Amino acid sequence: MWPYETPIVWQAEDHTVWMIDQRYLPHREDIYVARSYEDVAWAIRTMVIRGAPAIGVAAAMGVALAFRDASTVPVDPAARQAYFRRVAETLRQTRPTAVNLTWALGRMERVLEAHLDAPPDELFRYLRTEALEIQVEDVVLNQRIGEYGAQLFQEPAYLLTICNTGFLATAGYGTAAGVIRTLWRRGLLERVYVCETRPYLQGARLTMWEFLREGIPATLITDGMAGFLVQRGMVSAVLTGADRIARNGDTANKVGTYTLAVLAHYHGLPFYVAAPYSTIDMATPDGIHIPIEERDSREVTHVMEVPIAPEGTPVWNPAFDVTPHELITAIITDQGVIGRPIPEELARRFSTPANVAPAARLE
Amino acid sequence: MWPYETPIVWQAEDHTVWMIDQRYLPHREDIYVARSYEDVAWAIRTMVIRGAPAIGVAAAMGVALAFRDASTVPVDPAARQAYFRRVAETLRQTRPTAVNLTWALGRMERVLEAHLDAPPDELFRYLRTEALEIQVEDVVLNQRIGEYGAQLFQEPAYLLTICNTGFLATAGYGTAAGVIRTLWRRGLLERVYVCETRPYLQGARLTMWEFLREGIPATLITDGMAGFLVQRGMVSAVLTGADRIARNGDTANKVGTYTLAVLAHYHGLPFYVAAPYSTIDMATPDGIHIPIEERDSREVTHVMEVPIAPEGTPVWNPAFDVTPHELITAIITDQGVIGRPIPEELARRFSTPANVAPAARLE
Repeated sequence: MWPYETPIVWQAEDHTVWMIDQRYLPHREDIYVARSYEDVAWAIRTMVIRGAPAIGVAAAMGVALAFRDASTVPVDPAARQAYFRRVAETLRQTRPTAVNLTWALGRMERVLEAHLDAPPDELFRYLRTEALEIQVEDVVLNQRIGEYGAQLFQEPAYLLTICNTGFLATAGYGTAAGVIRTLWRRGLLERVYVCETRPYLQGARLTMWEFLREGIPATLITDGMAGFLVQRGMVSAVLTGADRIARNGDTANKVGTYTLAVLAHYHGLPFYVAAPYSTIDMATPDGIHIPIEERDSREVTHVMEVPIAPEGTPVWNPAFDVTPHELITAIITDQGVIGRPIPEELARRFSTPANVAPAARLE
Repeated sequence: MWPYETPIVWQAEDHTVWMIDQRYLPHREDIYVARSYEDVAWAIRTMVIRGAPAIGVAAAMGVALAFRDASTVPVDPAARQAYFRRVAETLRQTRPTAVNLTWALGRMERVLEAHLDAPPDELFRYLRTEALEIQVEDVVLNQRIGEYGAQLFQEPAYLLTICNTGFLATAGYGTAAGVIRTLWRRGLLERVYVCETRPYLQGARLTMWEFLREGIPATLITDGMAGFLVQRGMVSAVLTGADRIARNGDTANKVGTYTLAVLAHYHGLPFYVAAPYSTIDMATPDGIHIPIEERDSREVTHVMEVPIAPEGTPVWNPAFDVTPHELITAIITDQGVIGRPIPEELARRFSTPANVAPAARLE
């Protein structure tokens, strides 16, 4: 049994990276051991690890792994930069939508630039430390998100959520699921309904696994049942994570999120997005400019490797959708709750350039 | 390979009822042979056959099967009625939402009442003929639905549909899928997007199978993608079937339909319901009074027998939801298109009591 409350662990003894293989949860708790940045890239691409913040941590650790073996690290600064760029590009291209990937790689690049002439083993130590700091910071950020999010609720809530935003999707604790954890621990959660989240079933496989593990009262529904659930008055608020938030507040998240936002709007329910600041990409003006990854049609035509459609079925498989800021009641971040009007609030509160570590700005 | 364009066939040689076993489509085209009304009840309950009109035909054939063996049919009229009631009740209780079941059983009961004193073999012949007439009438009705529905479209459509409303769900041709067939044959269909329709995957398994078989341009999506698809402008109208339409036009259909109706409303798209007149239940005043079947949680926690959620996962599994008439642009029936205001239009055009055969009224 996976003993950690994080999906990814740097093993200090042999400098390998362990991940719980999320493709096989909840049925098997396999461990995937990454020994190279290519291993990490493969793990991100194949969804051994997923969730925007977790991918950021994985990419940072991937960079560190690339600098583990002194014999393969160029000594010449220009060659070292070129090597870094190749590594970073390989990691960046695994998943195009999550901004945390780019953000984490940016942090690693600054460490490289500050130690361009350092001996390889010293550079490795700096990069490793940075990756571990990204991980630890994310847990702290998520606990703050939980704190800020919980303050929005005065009485026990009936929540509806989608995908996995728990410790598996982050460095620990979770974003939207972190708010749900905090509410539960304070007696402010009656029940959370979890959309199974086809095609990849992160809700059924991962979120239910996390919630049942902690005893959180959770009920699984199929994605199509969300409308009926809301219509029946069984939900008091919708709460989701985010993979990228544009400068005006438009939010890319797991496909299905936009449908929930329209349902919440139609029924007058609050629709909250919970995400760390690093998810806000001030370099992207609005949702139209967020690249949406389209994944293999096999994810739709198969469930757990079992075919569910005729051979040759044409498929549309966007991994994310975009919820315009008009449908979002508030964005819950580690730096506080951003309410309406969201574009103006974002501009006012976060006028620093993108890709700067939140920790750096906090100091 | 199943050679028929209907899901159910009365075999005249040995008086058995053949059904294509829809649980295993599209991977296996198994034939289930029903020899008794209990077999038919089991087939309806376990979804060997499903779809409101098809269930009506199956129930009628089930009644006929119950009167096949003269030695088991009571001679005394009162005992014969009691026997019929037991048979009908068994068949009625298989699926509570579809009104066609009750309607078809009502037709069979009137045949029984007209021939209470007839010799068993003669009564069997009358009941068998009535069941076959219900089947043939339904095909004709569906072709009329296709005709009326196609008249709503002037230019090639991009449609979005859910569940299976094709020949598998009816006695043949289909309701919403019948409209789609008619449009396709007239060059008025660009593409139809099919929601996979969890939990039972009727869209992925059955509708895609039918559409690919006929060469209709169809693309499969998961249910959660519907919002993004509509937001992207890829849909010009939503078109679904119905399991029961209340007197005011509120419509019970496969769970997920209500979500599509809200999406269509939010995006200003027409939302059409296609169904035979027998689906309109004038005895049910509105959607609140339509009983909604809740099915086994295993349908949600498993896909094709493969578990997708942790053991012990709590589940909510309503098989249908209710779309209020305010969200419906028009109801396409075999007796014409019922537009807004739907409650008034229904009252005006269909003031006859429920459970009367449409054919009878047409004469």
